[in-house]
Amino acid sequence: MGNNMVDIIQKKKDGEALSPEEIRFFVEGYTAGDIPDYQASALLMAICFRGMDRQETFLLTEAMRLSGDMADLSAIKGVKVDKHSTGGVGDKTTLIAGPLAAACGVPVAKMSGRGLGFTGGTVDKLEAIPGFRTTLEAREFVELVNRRGISLIGQTAHIAPADKKLYALRDVTATVMEPSLIAASIMSKKLASGSDAIVLDVKCGRGSFNATEKDAERLALLLRDLGQDGGKRTMALVTDMEQPLGRAVGNSLEVIEAIETLKGRGPEDITELSLVLAGYMVYAGGRGETPEEGRRRAEEALRSGAGLEKLGQLIEGQGGDPGVLEDYSLFPRPVCKAEARAEKKGFVQGIDARAAGAASQHAGAGRKAKGDAIDLAAGLLLGAKTGEPVEKGDLLVTAWAATEEKAEEAAAKGAAAYVIGPEPPVLRPLVHSVVL
Amino acid sequence: MGNNMVDIIQKKKDGEALSPEEIRFFVEGYTAGDIPDYQASALLMAICFRGMDRQETFLLTEAMRLSGDMADLSAIKGVKVDKHSTGGVGDKTTLIAGPLAAACGVPVAKMSGRGLGFTGGTVDKLEAIPGFRTTLEAREFVELVNRRGISLIGQTAHIAPADKKLYALRDVTATVMEPSLIAASIMSKKLASGSDAIVLDVKCGRGSFNATEKDAERLALLLRDLGQDGGKRTMALVTDMEQPLGRAVGNSLEVIEAIETLKGRGPEDITELSLVLAGYMVYAGGRGETPEEGRRRAEEALRSGAGLEKLGQLIEGQGGDPGVLEDYSLFPRPVCKAEARAEKKGFVQGIDARAAGAASQHAGAGRKAKGDAIDLAAGLLLGAKTGEPVEKGDLLVTAWAATEEKAEEAAAKGAAAYVIGPEPPVLRPLVHSVVL
Repeated sequence: MGNNMVDIIQKKKDGEALSPEEIRFFVEGYTAGDIPDYQASALLMAICFRGMDRQETFLLTEAMRLSGDMADLSAIKGVKVDKHSTGGVGDKTTLIAGPLAAACGVPVAKMSGRGLGFTGGTVDKLEAIPGFRTTLEAREFVELVNRRGISLIGQTAHIAPADKKLYALRDVTATVMEPSLIAASIMSKKLASGSDAIVLDVKCGRGSFNATEKDAERLALLLRDLGQDGGKRTMALVTDMEQPLGRAVGNSLEVIEAIETLKGRGPEDITELSLVLAGYMVYAGGRGETPEEGRRRAEEALRSGAGLEKLGQLIEGQGGDPGVLEDYSLFPRPVCKAEARAEKKGFVQGIDARAAGAASQHAGAGRKAKGDAIDLAAGLLLGAKTGEPVEKGDLLVTAWAATEEKAEEAAAKGAAAYVIGPEPPVLRPLVHSVVL
Repeated sequence: MGNNMVDIIQKKKDGEALSPEEIRFFVEGYTAGDIPDYQASALLMAICFRGMDRQETFLLTEAMRLSGDMADLSAIKGVKVDKHSTGGVGDKTTLIAGPLAAACGVPVAKMSGRGLGFTGGTVDKLEAIPGFRTTLEAREFVELVNRRGISLIGQTAHIAPADKKLYALRDVTATVMEPSLIAASIMSKKLASGSDAIVLDVKCGRGSFNATEKDAERLALLLRDLGQDGGKRTMALVTDMEQPLGRAVGNSLEVIEAIETLKGRGPEDITELSLVLAGYMVYAGGRGETPEEGRRRAEEALRSGAGLEKLGQLIEGQGGDPGVLEDYSLFPRPVCKAEARAEKKGFVQGIDARAAGAASQHAGAGRKAKGDAIDLAAGLLLGAKTGEPVEKGDLLVTAWAATEEKAEEAAAKGAAAYVIGPEPPVLRPLVHSVVL
């Protein structure tokens, strides 16, 4: 090979750009188990300090993409659109925007990961629906999208295994937070997953890993560039994740809120963001001339109930019980409940999304370590959102957990995420910027 | 424990100083095998970028020192003096300064490592003497110093095992070159080795890892501080390693040159540096009021032959054949020989110590990887040193190796280390600075 891993680490440590051969050597060697973890982690840490330029990042993305299978969705008719969020608290938009876009005629064939963090990922949420299968044969997946317009499944181990292995290593070596590594990780999977267009929702604010709008915008640009370089129509929105999205945080609670939203009774923020994202998906899928036209179509699908119907088809198609749309008691039943109330009158200045997420995780809704079991019934409902007035004694948080103690602690933690002040706060926009 | 390794890595990555508990947690956990290599290497790389302050470096040194046994030299009478060099090409001063200092009444009880690099370490060189044992029981070691005034042995695995494990990891993760890690590595062993005073020879120039005088001085200061903080009288000299020291590079060749030097026939530079170092050892051991007085005593021990006699006692004491002092044919015999000659007339402007070292390693005198066998007879003799005039056709390098081909290649590589120019060059001083 001629490439020596120590030289590659040294080169990056010295701030030089790695060559295509060096990046491939690293990714292939690490995936094959020829390069040990300790050399990979040293390189990752050097990358955290030195960064990678656009060319290096694209090469890393490509090498990781090529480490596994490519999903072949060519048998699906139309422009397949994928949607991906960098992850936030209470984010159930996939369960709303996906069916809305599908109802507008855009084939939605999405593979999702499991969540590691405050709440479950989309796959975990879907598993709150009795009978819902998130593992399908490729043929069945393609057939479902062709017949029903939408299918959401778990990502297989064969999609970008290099990313899987590297992500696990980054997680335990404090090397997660580097834009080039984040971008390569996301896009290696997206580019391998077979869709024609990708709509990315890049979060910014306390509940996301992008503390500032600027960080989020930089990541959005990088993701868009990687997508375009990879030959996919790619667009990225920077959206707010300062407070949790909607009022529900926790797996079955969030599915119920998604259903409510598709019935036109959802919280304002979750309804709005879902319509915006669905609009971009419709636009990306060529079913609207502009994102605005896409949004109008999504609104119509919401109003007419076509979106809700599509969610029902999705559930039924993957073995779930579509009765959940009307009977929420079919979801896993929460065992213990606790409440926390406002200690003073005023306006909600903000709800720390990270703290609210941690409270929900404490209740049992999220994993602390890979492989942890999730309590699908656990989570929080928020009684007030940022900007709303509260009286002393008003309900701020209802928490559900497996034990009284956990529920009470989660409710208290959730209430501690609130800041209440005398004046109405300045509200942050829901969508900060769009990179087309 | 409460300490999480990921948090520790993150903290150092963010540029914060680690607490005493965190440093102990890392060193103890890594030595015990509880902390995996990949987390250790990520932390080491973060330290390369962020550095460690004096307090952190001392704590790391202490934690590594305490990871193994402390040599107990309390049964040795007098102020025991250790001498350590950061490593250079052709450096055989321990074999000269050690016996000289011992001849002046300073007990020299030194543990050395094996060499990994261009030539062997002191232990490897000593093994070129037929019968010489470098592994002794602690009791025998103490007895020898008490009876003969000097003993040189290999470092046991029980001295600072944390350093041993960390060094092996640094070596394969491009994290060797960080002053705080270098200093902690050196001083953890020195502080564990039981001497009362330490004389450090910090090299600077092309044949060392300190390219500049400034780097070397910074390291010298750091080493001195760590030694003092550890309760040992410590002094450090910054000395030149731009060209090889002396004319011999290679294990038995260097022992022969050391003997010649103790007979008063050594090259000027090796004689001078050995006298300076011996002078500081005598001073550190309380056998001279000043380093200058120490040097005068060392000069006397050289002139009188007391130093040579002491080397003979050392060899005899450890089972070696003292006949080597008179009969160099007792050393391992080189098999093949090759010569390289000057292609033009002029003055030697310089001899790249690194290139000369690599030539000697190529001949078989040094290890490329840990555990490699060393050809004790292999190496180079330099026909001219920096500043000397040469005629076209003058002998520049004689090389010995196991095969004709290797010998010829080594001679050619050695000759390529020379730069010859028309004017006499400005000579660098042998001792750049001293930190007392």
